[in-house]
Amino acid sequence: MSFNTFGKIFRFTTWGESHGPAIGCVVDGCPPNISLSEKDIQTDMDRRRPGKSKFTSQRKESDKVKILSGVFQGKTTGTPISLIIYNEDAKSRDYETIKNKFRPGHADYTYFLKYGIRDYRGGGRQSARETAARVAAGAVAKLALNKLIGKKFKVIGAVTQLGLLGCNKNNWNEKEIQKNPFFCPDKKSIKLWEKYLLAVRKAGSSCGAIIELRASGVPAGLGAPIYSKLDSDLAGALMSINAVKSVNIGAGINSALLSGEENSDEIKNISGKIKFKSNNAGGILGGISSGQDIIASFSVKPTSSILNSRETIDKKGKNIKITVKGRHDPCVGIRAVPIGEAMMLCVILDHYLLNKAQCG
Amino acid sequence: MSFNTFGKIFRFTTWGESHGPAIGCVVDGCPPNISLSEKDIQTDMDRRRPGKSKFTSQRKESDKVKILSGVFQGKTTGTPISLIIYNEDAKSRDYETIKNKFRPGHADYTYFLKYGIRDYRGGGRQSARETAARVAAGAVAKLALNKLIGKKFKVIGAVTQLGLLGCNKNNWNEKEIQKNPFFCPDKKSIKLWEKYLLAVRKAGSSCGAIIELRASGVPAGLGAPIYSKLDSDLAGALMSINAVKSVNIGAGINSALLSGEENSDEIKNISGKIKFKSNNAGGILGGISSGQDIIASFSVKPTSSILNSRETIDKKGKNIKITVKGRHDPCVGIRAVPIGEAMMLCVILDHYLLNKAQCG
Amino acid sequence: MSFNTFGKIFRFTTWGESHGPAIGCVVDGCPPNISLSEKDIQTDMDRRRPGKSKFTSQRKESDKVKILSGVFQGKTTGTPISLIIYNEDAKSRDYETIKNKFRPGHADYTYFLKYGIRDYRGGGRQSARETAARVAAGAVAKLALNKLIGKKFKVIGAVTQLGLLGCNKNNWNEKEIQKNPFFCPDKKSIKLWEKYLLAVRKAGSSCGAIIELRASGVPAGLGAPIYSKLDSDLAGALMSINAVKSVNIGAGINSALLSGEENSDEIKNISGKIKFKSNNAGGILGGISSGQDIIASFSVKPTSSILNSRETIDKKGKNIKITVKGRHDPCVGIRAVPIGEAMMLCVILDHYLLNKAQCG
Amino acid sequence: MSFNTFGKIFRFTTWGESHGPAIGCVVDGCPPNISLSEKDIQTDMDRRRPGKSKFTSQRKESDKVKILSGVFQGKTTGTPISLIIYNEDAKSRDYETIKNKFRPGHADYTYFLKYGIRDYRGGGRQSARETAARVAAGAVAKLALNKLIGKKFKVIGAVTQLGLLGCNKNNWNEKEIQKNPFFCPDKKSIKLWEKYLLAVRKAGSSCGAIIELRASGVPAGLGAPIYSKLDSDLAGALMSINAVKSVNIGAGINSALLSGEENSDEIKNISGKIKFKSNNAGGILGGISSGQDIIASFSVKPTSSILNSRETIDKKGKNIKITVKGRHDPCVGIRAVPIGEAMMLCVILDHYLLNKAQCG
Repeated sequence: MSFNTFGKIFRFTTWGESHGPAIGCVVDGCPPNISLSEKDIQTDMDRRRPGKSKFTSQRKESDKVKILSGVFQGKTTGTPISLIIYNEDAKSRDYETIKNKFRPGHADYTYFLKYGIRDYRGGGRQSARETAARVAAGAVAKLALNKLIGKKFKVIGAVTQLGLLGCNKNNWNEKEIQKNPFFCPDKKSIKLWEKYLLAVRKAGSSCGAIIELRASGVPAGLGAPIYSKLDSDLAGALMSINAVKSVNIGAGINSALLSGEENSDEIKNISGKIKFKSNNAGGILGGISSGQDIIASFSVKPTSSILNSRETIDKKGKNIKITVKGRHDPCVGIRAVPIGEAMMLCVILDHYLLNKAQCG
Repeated sequence: MSFNTFGKIFRFTTWGESHGPAIGCVVDGCPPNISLSEKDIQTDMDRRRPGKSKFTSQRKESDKVKILSGVFQGKTTGTPISLIIYNEDAKSRDYETIKNKFRPGHADYTYFLKYGIRDYRGGGRQSARETAARVAAGAVAKLALNKLIGKKFKVIGAVTQLGLLGCNKNNWNEKEIQKNPFFCPDKKSIKLWEKYLLAVRKAGSSCGAIIELRASGVPAGLGAPIYSKLDSDLAGALMSINAVKSVNIGAGINSALLSGEENSDEIKNISGKIKFKSNNAGGILGGISSGQDIIASFSVKPTSSILNSRETIDKKGKNIKITVKGRHDPCVGIRAVPIGEAMMLCVILDHYLLNKAQCG
Repeated sequence: MSFNTFGKIFRFTTWGESHGPAIGCVVDGCPPNISLSEKDIQTDMDRRRPGKSKFTSQRKESDKVKILSGVFQGKTTGTPISLIIYNEDAKSRDYETIKNKFRPGHADYTYFLKYGIRDYRGGGRQSARETAARVAAGAVAKLALNKLIGKKFKVIGAVTQLGLLGCNKNNWNEKEIQKNPFFCPDKKSIKLWEKYLLAVRKAGSSCGAIIELRASGVPAGLGAPIYSKLDSDLAGALMSINAVKSVNIGAGINSALLSGEENSDEIKNISGKIKFKSNNAGGILGGISSGQDIIASFSVKPTSSILNSRETIDKKGKNIKITVKGRHDPCVGIRAVPIGEAMMLCVILDHYLLNKAQCG
Repeated sequence: MSFNTFGKIFRFTTWGESHGPAIGCVVDGCPPNISLSEKDIQTDMDRRRPGKSKFTSQRKESDKVKILSGVFQGKTTGTPISLIIYNEDAKSRDYETIKNKFRPGHADYTYFLKYGIRDYRGGGRQSARETAARVAAGAVAKLALNKLIGKKFKVIGAVTQLGLLGCNKNNWNEKEIQKNPFFCPDKKSIKLWEKYLLAVRKAGSSCGAIIELRASGVPAGLGAPIYSKLDSDLAGALMSINAVKSVNIGAGINSALLSGEENSDEIKNISGKIKFKSNNAGGILGGISSGQDIIASFSVKPTSSILNSRETIDKKGKNIKITVKGRHDPCVGIRAVPIGEAMMLCVILDHYLLNKAQCG
């Protein structure tokens, strides 16, 4: 994991700016002979794509992925898979007015301090547009895992908290998640969420979210202690997503409130099948998967681009006020669901291959 | 970051098992000409050392560090610094009774599934004893940072929640943290914490904790987007500590509850000094340090080794009951404070050097 | 350095197959604020480009490089620089006849054994077409080094042996190298080389070459012992070029024949300037640059694709004969000159940045 | 491969100086359940050990290896294997006279320029004493490979050229190599070599050598194009050995002199077995092993420490003369044989595991 490359064996490198000609991704280390087509990837791209509902940015991007290398006659060859997505609806004019201003909550200020130069159009490289490339990489990882582990393996993400509103996780319904514009797992919460988010948007404000990821069918033994633990790598991966401020594994922050007895996930052999009585560990013990579901969650801060005026400075250090117009998601957390899934898929595949190397 | 090595430029590799002859650490990539003695490192080691109060394990380890290489005439030479700590009070007998049993909440089961073999004495490599080596590496990082950045730089950690009990963070007092056995920053909470933890121990149980880390004097510009973001690397680093289940940066999980306005950390030029009105970002924007304090917290689950009986299985899959005797901390979170500090120090130094490489 | 990524701080990842839609390169870790245009890169591309003289492949590729990211208003931004080169004259039909045959000397057989699948069109990923992407990366490195070190820094390569014919290195003339189609440094050798190579081509055969690289103006102190030595990284870099079978640093293989006295490169202070009496070390001592010119050479085996018939097997293991038609260089070593320069440039920049990190 | 760590999956980190208390090695990523004892490693250590014959340094080091971690009940556990070798016969006094002088041919000057500080006792970290740690790592790799691939796998090295004297490689005799003090494969050359080397030593001079390594039983498919090619990694590995100035794979530098026909290593199916008619490629095509023997050679420059006086400068830049007394090998190339074998073993194991990850 370095600069713009993620992973150890299954590695992807992303490139591109929000308002450049294109963005893309080079996926390296993918096993050969995996069936892969542009269509396979597109399905996942479409789940992250902006402009699909009134609750996401109205930027119109078809997000069509083109495969430039690494696939021959419909199969991966083991060589790098280059994926490109052209930017179509980049309205750079929108950004001319703020080119010398540092939007609070954004990385305008820190990019400028670090590099002494920044592409201010749509945030340049700091834009969440980069995450489209991750979703493409995740789609490749999913196909590889489905071949290597089988169809029983899957990763599902959902928004479990939208700003101030939670939902009932006991009503978790996988089909429902794919049907509503919030990736909400609880049908009963949707109406309220809809009203709430419309009100947030109308107020020129924004809100945060919590996303939960569940991976089932993950073999035991993945994760390499001490500094490539599965949970450590997941935490780094999820925290690398734009606007993420916390990562939890299993009981997460609540584990601090449990007693040793409550927390211990007792083990039971039930007619030859090893079962855990609970899953506070989130499927990971000592950094290694236990065969239970891997459970991780992450929280996303509210969109920093809001209509309401905020105080900040410009490049010369002058105090100014700023309102960010453009076309923004009132809650960036929603579109973080497929991104979180993609990162989890890539981490799991990477560790699957790493474990094969040392212990296979 | 791979297997047992942490870091990119400033890298350390740890080795050793709880009940082997020694544990240790090889620190590589340290800048030359940093003054370094065994005594410098020892001060930090003593803060993590077991057996210091009735609230930690009664294992008696002097944790004396010996420098085997990389230092000449009191200064680092730029070559690897090998540090060794001999194990003194390893009572392996204690573990014979559980050698074929999988302690719930521990990694016994997953190490066995992954490697097909495990050193069961004191948990072997999965033991938190490994973290002594991290503290040694952190001590080296601290000296390097103090030379490179100056004395204004510092990292301070504290326990802000002990099991069910919080404390008042407004009473944060750095001197107090070093005086009480809990690393508690709020003098007023100590008495209650003491009673609580004695009760937990007496009950044969254990509790979790939340630790907060604050780094001040960190230069702006550290952190390399996209996949070496400062927060991403911090999250990976802290999650790699034994028993950690969540990591928060700045407002962390609470950021999901804030509005866009509340969250945005407005910027103000006050008489030539750039100031932020708040620090929900925890000093990191777009993965790059902003010059504000870096704030991170992590939660530690309750100690898995408890006196109360739990259900589990043995190596043959037989259902059994287990009580873990040995000498255990009723709250492993307490000793996680110097470990968290060490990891943060290493991450900051690593990024300081990485930034110098590309942007220096 | 892993799979398709080269470098530690200044890293590039190449992708693409000989007969796919395009090839490309993602350059990461480049310092910001370096002036960079497509034209800057093109100059170097043109030196490697096929079809320029009758001594190279007649494949017509304009090798036009397009910058897709990482450059804003003419300057690098510190974010990944994505470079793409479309394949224009790929004649895949030529390869249908050999799609089930393993060309001797090529990697057809080993790619098939390793991956169980291979893109046989023009050798797919094993084709030297990949090296165009390296030349593009090298052009970026050159611009960065010229800014960081100054104009006194340069890397020059030349062919010093063409098959059985050597040249007089005492006649080394930098301008001459750029004028003749062989990158020969000795004007007096050119006529003979021309006749020789025409005869080789006419005979349906091919020949090898030795290329020498000289870097001047390299600061002392670059190279990180033990496993990132400058010479070790150069050796790995040059050996990664297609068809290279040996790498020499300084006196190279001949150093085995020297006495300790001859070999020792005595040092002399001449009016305040430190001078070495000789340069058998090739400017590298203990893996670290000494300030002398860096001298490296590498040998390239004869082109494996020849018109003359050779014995081999097909995919089913049947003994067959093969003649390789296509459009091939009679001596691939010639076009290896700009590739070798590019690799040396990338290694030097990488170590320049790495040294800045630890010792800057 | 970075700083003091070698390898990708099977990684080792060495530490220690010539005259410090100890040197050592941390081997990480070793597969679990490999039988490993100190005795297993010692056999290889003894082949490199100084003081065994009058043709090597008279420094008396027993080079006893102690295993500090990673082995439990005689088997590797998959956790890091820490190996330590105490320095016994370090005569630091010998070096006081030259502490401010830069020995020509050594890295005294470059270490000083790079780090601004150096441990001058016996060359500190630049000493070939570091290679003892590599031999220990190689011994671990050998045991792992013998378990993974089988007993048919082996790596044998020999000195094929001693200064000006070659030998007849057609007389290559593996048993002979282990019997004579030169690792010479040709019994007929030994007498002459003995006389020659005694004369060199008597003259207060030194000579170089060429070492050839042969690995047999290596499976096809190892090596990951483009930037982790097997030959590229071997070249980097061998060039990292002290005093090495060239690396050849197969026909190596001579490949430049061959015609396309001669070089092509035709393939033949002989009664169901795939055979190559020659092995100019050294068993590697396109960076991937072909199943043929892997052949590599490297040349070692003459020992830089010689009794005869040489010109140099001191730390203040003053011109001086120097003679290096100490206890030195007249030809360091001899003891490079087990070191070269060790590096080849580590590279092959690393690629075996890497190939298992992606293509296994």
